Amino acid sequence: MITLASDFGSPYPAAMKGVLLAETDPQPRLVDVAHDFPRGDVRTAAFWLREVLPYFPPAAHLAVVDPGVGTDRAALAVRAGDHALVGPDNGLLLPAARRLGEVEPFVVDESISGRVGHPAGGSASTTFHGRDVFAPAAAAVHEAGIEEMETLSALEPADDVTDCRFPEATLEDGRATGEVLVVDGFGNVVTNVPGSALAGVERVEAAGKRVPAVETFAAVPESEGLATVGSHGYVELDVNDGRGETFFGLSAGDDVALEFDFH
Amino acid sequence: MITLASDFGSPYPAAMKGVLLAETDPQPRLVDVAHDFPRGDVRTAAFWLREVLPYFPPAAHLAVVDPGVGTDRAALAVRAGDHALVGPDNGLLLPAARRLGEVEPFVVDESISGRVGHPAGGSASTTFHGRDVFAPAAAAVHEAGIEEMETLSALEPADDVTDCRFPEATLEDGRATGEVLVVDGFGNVVTNVPGSALAGVERVEAAGKRVPAVETFAAVPESEGLATVGSHGYVELDVNDGRGETFFGLSAGDDVALEFDFH
Amino acid sequence: MITLASDFGSPYPAAMKGVLLAETDPQPRLVDVAHDFPRGDVRTAAFWLREVLPYFPPAAHLAVVDPGVGTDRAALAVRAGDHALVGPDNGLLLPAARRLGEVEPFVVDESISGRVGHPAGGSASTTFHGRDVFAPAAAAVHEAGIEEMETLSALEPADDVTDCRFPEATLEDGRATGEVLVVDGFGNVVTNVPGSALAGVERVEAAGKRVPAVETFAAVPESEGLATVGSHGYVELDVNDGRGETFFGLSAGDDVALEFDFH
Repeated sequence: MITLASDFGSPYPAAMKGVLLAETDPQPRLVDVAHDFPRGDVRTAAFWLREVLPYFPPAAHLAVVDPGVGTDRAALAVRAGDHALVGPDNGLLLPAARRLGEVEPFVVDESISGRVGHPAGGSASTTFHGRDVFAPAAAAVHEAGIEEMETLSALEPADDVTDCRFPEATLEDGRATGEVLVVDGFGNVVTNVPGSALAGVERVEAAGKRVPAVETFAAVPESEGLATVGSHGYVELDVNDGRGETFFGLSAGDDVALEFDFH
Repeated sequence: MITLASDFGSPYPAAMKGVLLAETDPQPRLVDVAHDFPRGDVRTAAFWLREVLPYFPPAAHLAVVDPGVGTDRAALAVRAGDHALVGPDNGLLLPAARRLGEVEPFVVDESISGRVGHPAGGSASTTFHGRDVFAPAAAAVHEAGIEEMETLSALEPADDVTDCRFPEATLEDGRATGEVLVVDGFGNVVTNVPGSALAGVERVEAAGKRVPAVETFAAVPESEGLATVGSHGYVELDVNDGRGETFFGLSAGDDVALEFDFH
Repeated sequence: MITLASDFGSPYPAAMKGVLLAETDPQPRLVDVAHDFPRGDVRTAAFWLREVLPYFPPAAHLAVVDPGVGTDRAALAVRAGDHALVGPDNGLLLPAARRLGEVEPFVVDESISGRVGHPAGGSASTTFHGRDVFAPAAAAVHEAGIEEMETLSALEPADDVTDCRFPEATLEDGRATGEVLVVDGFGNVVTNVPGSALAGVERVEAAGKRVPAVETFAAVPESEGLATVGSHGYVELDVNDGRGETFFGLSAGDDVALEFDFH
């Protein structure tokens, strides 16, 4: 199985799928994770990959959010337990890799692009490594097998890779200080404050709003704010049938302080 | 085969796919129906499921539009002929189920969420039952087989389920009174007036506009209104290369009266 | 394998998938190319099909952008080397077909719609040939095999088909005159000027802007314009981390003149 994730929108991911299917025998199952990550936003994509990929059975994960395409940033293939991740060396893959298992990074020789059969006299591009470098690399890892991926001549152990770390929140009595990790498609504001901080809490004050701490959206009337433990295990600032992002005026990366009122 | 439908946007459906693939052996074919149903709009989603799912061969259909997630609304698995549907007990599944065959509803014990392996110390959430309850339930139904689904210990026959019924239009000579069922992505206004009402009709007056009754969009000039029998078998109010929704000023749920001029 | 492409948005493609899976044994692998082609824009969709489909291994490609649905435009099945394409006779399929191999077009008898099992007394529509004509035709081609597709009784050799040709750019010393083929989802302006025209070029003037000719987006500061050889092999007018479409004020179909400054 190979999963695909990118900020490519449409129809570029289809070219990657073509390469993955043309370059493999037997052909892998392909599963789209998302192709609408915010353009060039490595950190947000890294968060989502970390949250979603661990639900999959062992697979090769092709992930491309790559504002530095064509520069000298390396192409990586990372083994992480039973999984492998393939993408640019810009931090995108590391948070997910650490969740998936022991991390063993390899640099991919970009000459692997020679495996792609371009139509009509085309050739490897400097602007679409998803198709021309990362897809053939993921195909090669799939064919070799994740356990045997270091047998590929295009892979060399990587000494040093670009990392991406999400900050930890600070918890004091009655208060947490952290930041907004992402805002999801529903407008839910996902903070980095662990959900356990809401134990025994009745109300939360955040960004000048005092809202109840509840277990579900529907525990408050429509269009009202709430704090809850979201599906990622963090405190989320949400609105029932509305957008927490707008209600709280918070965006990804913003600092946020939560004041807790206990029962 | 398992189909997936939701109002989740992206990337949450990928977490459901991960669970479906991690929890089954052999793994099912996964087919996306749609993940962009209007947020929390159970009725619109129920309409689309009813229109689309009957074209599929026998399958388990995972469908989640669930504004009451985390409340005491039940989780359902419904056998409908050769098909099964899994989702919240809010009416979402019933219109499609009736189209698919004889309806046998079961309540799903939410403890089925214990089947999901959460990474990094995570646990079942109160806000994402698509991943934590409905996906493992659909995986279990797939594994047990639709014919044998009642052998699952997590399923109990349901006494009473929430229904969703679409109103019938009233037809009199020269006139039909009904409502707008949905507006589709093209802006086509799908009414609940049966297409047969257009037999012998030359022109239709609706929402203050008089438009020709035709068989195709291209039968009228670009940007002009028309009435036709849409692909769902109902009278649609459309615009050739434009949005009927705007032209007629009609939205889902609006009452609509059609006056017919016959040939 | 059957790929799917359309301007249908959602959820109409799912009905096509249902038909493809219900009407075939063994069932094909289904791969989405795109369902968000600009509505009714045959030429743009033809461009993308030409650029993307050749990366796939041999497959049947179902492609529907069909503003003339329900008129007397024919339904086509085109064999192109090891591939087949199925869709409306409006030029959509031909540019891709020529890239894929020798082109052999067949007209599809629309009575093939009789193969679709409509639920609840429904019948073939005049407005959704993707579901009712093209999907059963693609299923039939898949079942017969691309090499044997002419054995299908619903197929007759086509005498004459509607074509779609992209204009060639004119290259003179220091200057190229052409047009914008498409603007992609990143806002990149893809011209029809061959990428080879940038050999030895230091700067390009286009639409009143003078920008460097570079190999990658990141070779210029953020929000600055550039010219590069895009992944389609043509000169593209782009912006690093921004939209070339806005910066250069160019849209699909616009004439464009490029003035080159050589090193």
